[in-house]
Amino acid sequence: MHPDFQLWASERLALIETCLEKHLPATNCAPARLHDAMRYSVLGGGKRVRPLLAFASGELSGADQAHVTVAGAAVELIHAYSLVHDDLPCMDNDTLRRGKPTCHIKYDEPTALLVGDSLQSLAFQLLTEIRLTDDPSVQLEMIRHLAFAAGSRGMAGGQAIDLDSVGKILNLPELEFMHIHKTGALIRAAVTLGARCGNKLSETQFKQLDHFSKCMGLAFQVIDDILDAEATTTALGKTAGKDAENNKPTYVSILGIKQARELAQELRQEATGVLGQFGTGALRLQQVTDFIVQREF
Amino acid sequence: MHPDFQLWASERLALIETCLEKHLPATNCAPARLHDAMRYSVLGGGKRVRPLLAFASGELSGADQAHVTVAGAAVELIHAYSLVHDDLPCMDNDTLRRGKPTCHIKYDEPTALLVGDSLQSLAFQLLTEIRLTDDPSVQLEMIRHLAFAAGSRGMAGGQAIDLDSVGKILNLPELEFMHIHKTGALIRAAVTLGARCGNKLSETQFKQLDHFSKCMGLAFQVIDDILDAEATTTALGKTAGKDAENNKPTYVSILGIKQARELAQELRQEATGVLGQFGTGALRLQQVTDFIVQREF
Repeated sequence: MHPDFQLWASERLALIETCLEKHLPATNCAPARLHDAMRYSVLGGGKRVRPLLAFASGELSGADQAHVTVAGAAVELIHAYSLVHDDLPCMDNDTLRRGKPTCHIKYDEPTALLVGDSLQSLAFQLLTEIRLTDDPSVQLEMIRHLAFAAGSRGMAGGQAIDLDSVGKILNLPELEFMHIHKTGALIRAAVTLGARCGNKLSETQFKQLDHFSKCMGLAFQVIDDILDAEATTTALGKTAGKDAENNKPTYVSILGIKQARELAQELRQEATGVLGQFGTGALRLQQVTDFIVQREF
Repeated sequence: MHPDFQLWASERLALIETCLEKHLPATNCAPARLHDAMRYSVLGGGKRVRPLLAFASGELSGADQAHVTVAGAAVELIHAYSLVHDDLPCMDNDTLRRGKPTCHIKYDEPTALLVGDSLQSLAFQLLTEIRLTDDPSVQLEMIRHLAFAAGSRGMAGGQAIDLDSVGKILNLPELEFMHIHKTGALIRAAVTLGARCGNKLSETQFKQLDHFSKCMGLAFQVIDDILDAEATTTALGKTAGKDAENNKPTYVSILGIKQARELAQELRQEATGVLGQFGTGALRLQQVTDFIVQREF
């Protein structure tokens, strides 16, 4: 990782952590155990890839950093809720997340269910806490985008397709369709919400940015599949090898490791190509892209 | 029920049903099974008490009926999601709802989890679909109110307190605290969102209306507890006698039937007293109140 990027990212991770810490209800506020479990599930872990993407696209559009922090934190809350629910026994039944016991292991199943539900509500609440744009109707658009991305035609829908695909043989377009929903929708939302906090982009540029984030979302998932197949549980902080064990179709199971790596590079190149049109303003987006494709956890 | 109220209510129930029907994704849209399960869990059932309250308070504030329809439908989506999750095996483990098998029985547990998650997202999406107020920042306030009411310091928090109270002896203030969150928060949100769609009320009037809805929310729950103890499963469309079976503290277990009935009447009188200050504009709110307190299912 470029040292300059490392500094940029760590400063922004601190902003996100402070924002999440501030807006998650305190543990001395009733119901205390639920709030404790919400904080456990969100704070002190995670790569925060989505907020970093929001910051990077916010720089492109000249957004106020304080506004992007709130937007990025809201997207992260949706992501955190999805992990808590995905880990439940009726879903992936996982016991390890971010190097710690999953929420339903540390607390219990009903609490984990309510943690996820409450984090989703909090995400939308957060998007209304302060004025994020000069025009409040743009802020309504941002909420709309995040709600759509989180819902049945976005992330939750992708999860349903994923569950339905267990034990099935998917072709590449089917796998792509699943991941455009499951991972891609929220990554696109992060990029869009970050950019919407600013005002320097045309609608054409927003479309290009969305094309970039589609490529990014898929690249992210390809790498995720490779890491699940190759990395250790310790390195990942979550159980490795789960996809094969659960008989889930992945980029690795369909393409093999070598071709999956090639695909990740192709997607990275396509994403980089789109960014080229934005000139130097897209430096951070390029660095986050590189970080995502090169990551080892 | 007054025939005039019956007509008023049935017209508005039809509006809500049409709105929900329109905004729930079609079953020919992927993922089809998830969308089928979402429609199964929302359409064609339920008393729609919250939307009726929204319509009644919208009349008080001079709101456009089309706007209140959207706001009321959003609140109903939150309510519907909470029922699907509450019925899950790790929560109340119920098999019957609105006279039909619960979502996880009809479909499966992971689908029911995703149905609830997706309905919550859809509720917030719906609140951004059309302009509900002249001033979009008021619409942001409405979203904020609903998110807070649904979350850990509202409905989901009340559910956590409820789970934690199983087998415990609560006193009346503790029971009230639980229900102000579990049922009350969303009922208050329905009244507030309906009223916010219009513009005829002062902040003092909003506060009075909120006091009304607090009383209403508690009265609703007292009646719910009485019905759970006294009515049949067939009449309720959901399993009767669950509270006693699950060793849950209720108004009936703490006060007994007779005193619980008296409390419901007291709350109704207090609610009616508040409405008196609004004159004839509060006619529908009074009728919905009577309907809620007199209902037998």
